[in-house]
Amino acid sequence: VVAPKTVLIVYAHQSPSSFNAAAKDVAVQTLTAQGCEVIVSDLYAMNFHSSATAADIKGNLKNPEHFLYDEETFIAWKEDRLSDDIKEEHRKVAQADLIIFQFPLYWFTVPAIMKGWMERVLTQGFAYTLQTIYDNGNFKDKKAVLSFTTGGIESMYLPDGINGDINVCLWPLQNGVLRFCGFQVLAPQIFWCVGHTPPSERTAMLEAWQARLNGMLDEQPLSFAPTKLFDLSFQAGFRLRSDIKEAYASQPYGLTTGQHLGKPFPPNNQTKSAPHDKQ
Amino acid sequence: VVAPKTVLIVYAHQSPSSFNAAAKDVAVQTLTAQGCEVIVSDLYAMNFHSSATAADIKGNLKNPEHFLYDEETFIAWKEDRLSDDIKEEHRKVAQADLIIFQFPLYWFTVPAIMKGWMERVLTQGFAYTLQTIYDNGNFKDKKAVLSFTTGGIESMYLPDGINGDINVCLWPLQNGVLRFCGFQVLAPQIFWCVGHTPPSERTAMLEAWQARLNGMLDEQPLSFAPTKLFDLSFQAGFRLRSDIKEAYASQPYGLTTGQHLGKPFPPNNQTKSAPHDKQ
Ligand SMILES: Cc1cc2nc3c(=O)[nH]c(=O)nc-3n(C[C@H](O)[C@H](O)[C@H](O)COP(=O)(O)OP(=O)(O)OC[C@H]3O[C@@H](n4cnc5c(N)ncnc54)[C@H](O)[C@@H]3O)c2cc1C
Ligand SMILES: Cc1cc2nc3c(=O)[nH]c(=O)nc-3n(C[C@H](O)[C@H](O)[C@H](O)COP(=O)(O)OP(=O)(O)OC[C@H]3O[C@@H](n4cnc5c(N)ncnc54)[C@H](O)[C@@H]3O)c2cc1C
Repeated sequence: VVAPKTVLIVYAHQSPSSFNAAAKDVAVQTLTAQGCEVIVSDLYAMNFHSSATAADIKGNLKNPEHFLYDEETFIAWKEDRLSDDIKEEHRKVAQADLIIFQFPLYWFTVPAIMKGWMERVLTQGFAYTLQTIYDNGNFKDKKAVLSFTTGGIESMYLPDGINGDINVCLWPLQNGVLRFCGFQVLAPQIFWCVGHTPPSERTAMLEAWQARLNGMLDEQPLSFAPTKLFDLSFQAGFRLRSDIKEAYASQPYGLTTGQHLGKPFPPNNQTKSAPHDKQ
Repeated sequence: VVAPKTVLIVYAHQSPSSFNAAAKDVAVQTLTAQGCEVIVSDLYAMNFHSSATAADIKGNLKNPEHFLYDEETFIAWKEDRLSDDIKEEHRKVAQADLIIFQFPLYWFTVPAIMKGWMERVLTQGFAYTLQTIYDNGNFKDKKAVLSFTTGGIESMYLPDGINGDINVCLWPLQNGVLRFCGFQVLAPQIFWCVGHTPPSERTAMLEAWQARLNGMLDEQPLSFAPTKLFDLSFQAGFRLRSDIKEAYASQPYGLTTGQHLGKPFPPNNQTKSAPHDKQ
């Protein structure tokens, strides 16, 4: 028997009748029907506090004269003195095999309330240490996926679209937040322009999402340049190893064109999106 | 006589003894000495609310059953029914010739409290309309600059660094937020790894910042692919015009390598950084 999996959905929309709510509900139903335990953090409903402040620490600060959020929360985590709402989210994350972030795209990224969740919950010590990042990250046995709606149409977010490549827009989240903590990052689920799409297409998008959810726990993650390809020392500056650079110099990987994204670094680095983009 | 300029500093650090506070203070002093009027929004001190909720609207919602933040705030803006704290920030932005965002890099981007400022203050109607974006944006006569500190060293944020190109990390902010609203985006001011830098280098960084501030109002902005190079219609999908693609096909602009950033699209697209990066 396979142990049942636990899925945490971190969800940020103000309205229960929104498309985001529908996408969240489809995930809860589909995963529960599979036998998963599903936990939802409904950030607006929880009135989740979204700024990183000294209120996150119980008891005395180590250095009240010069408050530094990362240092104080790292100590508080070690001494079990973080605020109760953070500890509760830590318990959920610790259990989760998969985290789904469900949100409307706000200014090319997650809403502030979800950014606040990331700042407050992905505490140093709990989510990463200076020794355990990327391929060696604390959460390397967990998966994570960004599932979001947009106002813009898909072509605006193509490499030659006016907004620029969606993969570039997502880099700070997918590499900087998720992969940094070790998560296996699954291809983003993008519901394009839901507000200006006919109802039948919206229904089709949710059906495609449901179908994807049925196999999600077995999906291969996106591929990023493996951590071992970098020189992990201050002297060497945490840069790509020169032997690797040479070996790949003539290859069309993102590595050589200015970023380690873009072209698949085997096997596959595509975004997955709902089956539509007509206007 | 030249009219005095107004500068708004949107500042996000919890501690008045931080390096960020020092960078903010240097800006206040240097710009005031030049005769500028300087306004500071000290977000943590203001306890600035950072989530986009219905509390931002006074009076009745148009559609309380299905709350949509952008639609409700657009209407409230037209009818002068936004919350007082947002209106106050609107007044500051309206006056400003230059906005400086001063913050520590949190998860590859601005802190949630500053993201909340962007979501709540850059209201549709006030900051952009569907007709006025990018080169035609509402704020095309204003300048904006990201000024921030990092934990990581500069080489980690080179194109071949483990974190990826800092210009890619900044794309959602510089293109997606600032340029989207029309701002002339000045090169970012980056104070690398301030926590692990000798005091003399930190002093030198602040002196370099002061020197830059003396000429900042005359700086040329970063260059982005001009809006007129795109087909601005839903049919054409807001993509780069095919004649432009052809003309630039063999040129080393970011346009051809997957994003319209990276290589200078004349005249100059470099990051400016403090004069150090030793470890
Ligand atoms: C501050 C801010 C910043 C933004 N920045 C960006 C940006 O950078 N880029 C960008 O592209 N967009 C941006 N947007 C737009 C935003 O991303 C969209 O408004 C949002 O993604 C729409 O999602 P929603 O869940 O709110 O849609 P809704 O408007 O709630 O839903 C769309 C439609 O789906 C219907 N629906 C609900 N449930 C179902 C169901 N079960 N089946 C079928 N239909 C259903 C709804 O009734 C509605 O008609 C921004 C918006 C704001 C407020
Ligand atoms: C939630 C979170 C996420 C983070 N994510 C990232 C990330 O994605 N990438 C990354 O690189 N980093 C990240 N960091 C680290 C963060 O960016 C740094 O901790 C921050 O930039 C340091 O700036 P500070 O103002 O807090 O420095 P401080 O620690 O306040 O200052 C550094 C030093 O400067 C001194 N100083 C103060 N005033 C002066 C003065 N006038 N002259 C000279 N010296 C002075 C201080 O005393 C101190 O010794 C993150 C931190 C947190 C809390």
